[in-house]
Amino acid sequence: MGAIDTAAFLRDLYELREIGRFRSGVHRPTYSPQDMQARRWLVERLTACGLVASIDGIGNVYGRHPGPGPHLLVGSHIETQNEAGWLDGALGVMAGVALARAGLPVDVCAFADEEGHFEGGFLGSRSIIGELSDEEIDRSRNRTDGMPLRDALRAAGLEGRARMGLEPGRHKGYFELHIEQGTQLEGSGLRLGVVSGIVAIWQWRIVVEGQQDHAGGTTMAERRDAGLAAVRLLAAVDAEFPGIAGERSTWTTGRIVLTPGAPSIIPGRAEVLFQFRDVSVPVLERMEVGLRALVRESNRRERCSVTVEQIARAIPAVCDPAMMAALEGAAEELAPGAWQVMPSGAGHDAQVLARRMPAAMLFVPSIGGVSHHWAEDTKDEDLALGVEVLGEAALRVLGR
Amino acid sequence: MGAIDTAAFLRDLYELREIGRFRSGVHRPTYSPQDMQARRWLVERLTACGLVASIDGIGNVYGRHPGPGPHLLVGSHIETQNEAGWLDGALGVMAGVALARAGLPVDVCAFADEEGHFEGGFLGSRSIIGELSDEEIDRSRNRTDGMPLRDALRAAGLEGRARMGLEPGRHKGYFELHIEQGTQLEGSGLRLGVVSGIVAIWQWRIVVEGQQDHAGGTTMAERRDAGLAAVRLLAAVDAEFPGIAGERSTWTTGRIVLTPGAPSIIPGRAEVLFQFRDVSVPVLERMEVGLRALVRESNRRERCSVTVEQIARAIPAVCDPAMMAALEGAAEELAPGAWQVMPSGAGHDAQVLARRMPAAMLFVPSIGGVSHHWAEDTKDEDLALGVEVLGEAALRVLGR
Repeated sequence: MGAIDTAAFLRDLYELREIGRFRSGVHRPTYSPQDMQARRWLVERLTACGLVASIDGIGNVYGRHPGPGPHLLVGSHIETQNEAGWLDGALGVMAGVALARAGLPVDVCAFADEEGHFEGGFLGSRSIIGELSDEEIDRSRNRTDGMPLRDALRAAGLEGRARMGLEPGRHKGYFELHIEQGTQLEGSGLRLGVVSGIVAIWQWRIVVEGQQDHAGGTTMAERRDAGLAAVRLLAAVDAEFPGIAGERSTWTTGRIVLTPGAPSIIPGRAEVLFQFRDVSVPVLERMEVGLRALVRESNRRERCSVTVEQIARAIPAVCDPAMMAALEGAAEELAPGAWQVMPSGAGHDAQVLARRMPAAMLFVPSIGGVSHHWAEDTKDEDLALGVEVLGEAALRVLGR
Repeated sequence: MGAIDTAAFLRDLYELREIGRFRSGVHRPTYSPQDMQARRWLVERLTACGLVASIDGIGNVYGRHPGPGPHLLVGSHIETQNEAGWLDGALGVMAGVALARAGLPVDVCAFADEEGHFEGGFLGSRSIIGELSDEEIDRSRNRTDGMPLRDALRAAGLEGRARMGLEPGRHKGYFELHIEQGTQLEGSGLRLGVVSGIVAIWQWRIVVEGQQDHAGGTTMAERRDAGLAAVRLLAAVDAEFPGIAGERSTWTTGRIVLTPGAPSIIPGRAEVLFQFRDVSVPVLERMEVGLRALVRESNRRERCSVTVEQIARAIPAVCDPAMMAALEGAAEELAPGAWQVMPSGAGHDAQVLARRMPAAMLFVPSIGGVSHHWAEDTKDEDLALGVEVLGEAALRVLGR
């Protein structure tokens, strides 16, 4: 087994960056022509490394190592958010290619739609572990333009193609190299993050119902302003959650929509998308209890009514201790003192693969913490270090 | 001069209701085919009452009393909000027709686009008092679909038509009968409101700039969440304004927009449309001082920056005491004890006419306070009482 060819690895990344180029980033929404072009390019790369490559019915690109095991699975995703970064996902896929090129017994996979362009989320990784039904595919639509997933698959030439599953017992574990998408490594002057676990997102839709009315003709005392009730509830969450949440929890309101949304009309309805994240289930449950208590209090005091609907309730994924130890050992060997253990605040395919096999992730720094933006970037030397540490850890896990 | 024929008045209203009918209301956006049909219908009604009727270049429908003065001007507007009520505006116009039919020396006018379908606001009444330039008409577009006002005027057959002005000194005053569009009369069991003044709307656009970022990968301590800063500011306004505002002031946030508005992305920008209203300029100024102080405080404390832009700064219009006294006397005569003096929380053409002549308004109750909605309604007997009191007040003002 040869050393990792980091020059070829970087060349691969830069070549992939040209597919769907947008400023210094890329625009490769799932199943778009650019995305399918990237998938076909990846099939060529995998084949050139001696893997048997194919694209399945949900768009997963899989390169199977033809030799004997034990094997590891290495991968990430290859589509991008709209007008976003060149490394998010691509890094982990090309790292897999680099390990295969070096002769390691790895399968490499780019799991389709980790970025969630279509309803459902993690379609590719859930499909490969057998947790994506045909009915769910039938129902799923593009979150931006509503296009049915079936139509997108058809347009991408994937209709009728079988969806692959994992071969039980084939892999000792799953490794994913990824950019941090935060500022903790950069802020601490570190070069690597060994991920302890992947937070779960509990996503909520909060709906406030009031009474639409004339902003001038309706007195303050009689109005039932759904927007105001929403603001008061969110202000209460802002005040209370620090005392409820865990040390590394995050909670975020991404969207507020008032209806009708006209300057002179008291909103009769408000809809809020609010989520919180943590790597610990008891903490998530505590935050849920807190949220529901604040909603109850709002309903007790306000003239508007608030309902809460949970639209996602993922399970945190804990990374495998043995695989983590391999990453820690490799990191300390190649970059002594320049790494730390840390959770992942973002979701990844690793959290899905973790339901079927030991899984672990390795982070490299994000410059300025920027991600989901075309300015996303990481220094070449940190990318190279990342794939070298991944390769060394893989050898340790494989017992070499 | 005969008594007001309330049966004919009600018949007129019900006939007008059929033009652009939508459920129990009407859909007559300014310059639409239905609106132009209503204006032509009005020309016929005015002519039938002996007035010299015309439609001018901005769509004002004017019926000029051919006999000697002194004259009064009586009117309102005839277009409607989308899918809205049958009385808002129509009531005051048909009341003018009823007074003319009874032989009172009144001109009757339906001022175009009081409802503000096109940018600028109060286009018809501002035009007739000489405060609407051709340049402003050139710039104005429909607020919903962006159609240039010039195109709408052309399509309505009004291109090239001259715009009329008031004849200075012709009118002793302007009377407008209107539905209350609130619940104060109904809530107090009263049948009439003599309006003391028309509130001014001071409209603000508040923009918060933060940093768009990943909801999971960005810690609570480092994020610059523009949506959260907006919520905190609005919560502060909610807490402070009761102590700043006047007794009858209203303040309303009609719209909040977070950008990008995605569930897993920290908003980098928030835009809020906030307005307050009062009939007293010192109170409006106090609320402005209060708003700016809260914005300053936000900029002192938060990691996001807030800017405030005023997009409307109207002047409150005080109603004429002599005309109010005439209305009060007529109300007490025809409905003793069943009336009150009250401000108008909504804008009306009267506030524009008040810049040129004494002006006064009379309110009738709104059932359930509903307006700007097809369910808007008032009992026939209250409509009839309103036009009778208006006629009696007109006689008093004219010295008969």
